[in-house]
Amino acid sequence: MTKLINNPNSVENDLFSAFASLYHDAIYRIEDTGVFVSKEKYDSVAVVSGGGSGHEPAHIGYVGSGMLKACAMGAVFVPPTPDEVYQMICAADEGKGVFVIVKNFIEDVTSFNLGIDMARQQGIKVDSIIVNDDCSVEDSSFKKRRRGVAGTLFIHKIIGAAAQAGKSLDELKVIAESALSELNTLGVALSSGTLPGKATPMFDLEFGHVSYGMGIHGESGYRIEDFRGSAELANEIWNKLKSQCDVKKGEQVAILVNGLGGTPEMELLIFYHDLMQLIELDNIECSFVKVGSLMTSMDMKGVSVSCLPLKESMWLEYLNQKTNAPSW
Amino acid sequence: MTKLINNPNSVENDLFSAFASLYHDAIYRIEDTGVFVSKEKYDSVAVVSGGGSGHEPAHIGYVGSGMLKACAMGAVFVPPTPDEVYQMICAADEGKGVFVIVKNFIEDVTSFNLGIDMARQQGIKVDSIIVNDDCSVEDSSFKKRRRGVAGTLFIHKIIGAAAQAGKSLDELKVIAESALSELNTLGVALSSGTLPGKATPMFDLEFGHVSYGMGIHGESGYRIEDFRGSAELANEIWNKLKSQCDVKKGEQVAILVNGLGGTPEMELLIFYHDLMQLIELDNIECSFVKVGSLMTSMDMKGVSVSCLPLKESMWLEYLNQKTNAPSW
Repeated sequence: MTKLINNPNSVENDLFSAFASLYHDAIYRIEDTGVFVSKEKYDSVAVVSGGGSGHEPAHIGYVGSGMLKACAMGAVFVPPTPDEVYQMICAADEGKGVFVIVKNFIEDVTSFNLGIDMARQQGIKVDSIIVNDDCSVEDSSFKKRRRGVAGTLFIHKIIGAAAQAGKSLDELKVIAESALSELNTLGVALSSGTLPGKATPMFDLEFGHVSYGMGIHGESGYRIEDFRGSAELANEIWNKLKSQCDVKKGEQVAILVNGLGGTPEMELLIFYHDLMQLIELDNIECSFVKVGSLMTSMDMKGVSVSCLPLKESMWLEYLNQKTNAPSW
Repeated sequence: MTKLINNPNSVENDLFSAFASLYHDAIYRIEDTGVFVSKEKYDSVAVVSGGGSGHEPAHIGYVGSGMLKACAMGAVFVPPTPDEVYQMICAADEGKGVFVIVKNFIEDVTSFNLGIDMARQQGIKVDSIIVNDDCSVEDSSFKKRRRGVAGTLFIHKIIGAAAQAGKSLDELKVIAESALSELNTLGVALSSGTLPGKATPMFDLEFGHVSYGMGIHGESGYRIEDFRGSAELANEIWNKLKSQCDVKKGEQVAILVNGLGGTPEMELLIFYHDLMQLIELDNIECSFVKVGSLMTSMDMKGVSVSCLPLKESMWLEYLNQKTNAPSW
């Protein structure tokens, strides 16, 4: 599909200039980088994150008090450099340390860890978590892929709010690990996205088919099936999530229904409602829900569902706490 | 493209059920209708609107204090019935009258006017405005089409905030007419949307082409051209808008960059920034800007730009006033 861009090679620069312009009241860009930092003083541990571009409104849309202090963005589907991660950490630190949220992709983990090491060598207290909420599997080995996908936003929100509530770096690490151990996400594609400047989509998917477990960088899924309607898809995803999540009758969950970039809100809403009916039928209480295209994969059409069983009451409080992040 | 829905015939019911579920804390549905009313007491003139489905998050996303008190939704691209309009007005009225915002499509105007007449016969004070912000032209006659499109959201926001500030029904009518006389919108499609249950898109548009002046109900545009990049498109749209708007160097405008349903945020942001640079070059101050897929046309890929020269300082105050409408 025709892309509303200019030169494919200038996409990241055009995008970073757009961020800097749109959010100039609240957020500044470190010149010649993909690093964006809140102008506000948080007076807390600084929570930061980042990754490649192509996932808008992630990550800049989550920079705001009660959520992220800063983010570092790379080119499309390419993580920021170690130096950018380092610069982000230095700029974000208010003397109380920096907590870094990384999505589990090998390139991201490598780059973020190098940047974290550089910051530590400068005496900055840094801790981090690698989010691996994806519960899809390899089609050959059935090994869980455990990439970091849309559920990462729940970690941003919970840890950002906990930092604002005065938690220390060590305490944030405990909360993040505990929430992460309960978090699962499963995504499906109804069409592939296309990279800027490419004539063909990132993977093949025929009309009327759905691909289970695709990644947010255009990685194809583990199984392709006929699409048999939103309700049936919701049923398959919910059953899979239930098998991965420790959640019983009468317990509470937080749910994120995330559009992947090319999914109109009408369709997201219809799917959300099909899913809610199943959760209700199971006598599970959905105490927090978010529906939107919040962690996208270019113009891919599809949806992911993240489920966080609310094992600790504070998680719900943190999710509900106000933030001025523009896209939450 | 595969649609994430169930039976095409149940789309509106599935969607209305989703609305009722997602917003149950703040908004109630009048049973067996597409009418949704805020549970909050506004203690002001009630501002209401509505139209067909397929434009999500319009209109329910704009129900909240400081914006709409209620909305009436019909089937996909079909206005609510006169009776639904009537029920909406009755439910919204808090004794101070109801101001109805209608988009200029013949079916909408007919249905809303009948509903307004029914309410007046019951003694409810009602006034209305027909928003006709579209400045595209018929390709044969060059007659301006003046449909009601995304600029309607500026009228929702300004009139909603003015009502909250205590303005009377008569005063709201004056403000609405005055703002409307300055408001222009021009949209372009990069691909057509597709109606539920249909195999083919609503209009033909080859890859690499752009259609100027399409409508939000799948009406094709007045001219098809090669797509030559976001910056060039921004230039053409801005030149056209400038020729329609009364705006000079040093003056202020409010701008809405609206995605049409299938446009990922990355592309909207790149286009927004190209547009901002042109506005700056003209020494026109963009004092208010909104970027998002806020008035969509199913899964159409494309963008519209609405421009409101800020002739009265109160308009900017009203635009900036807080609202709890979920999608503003």
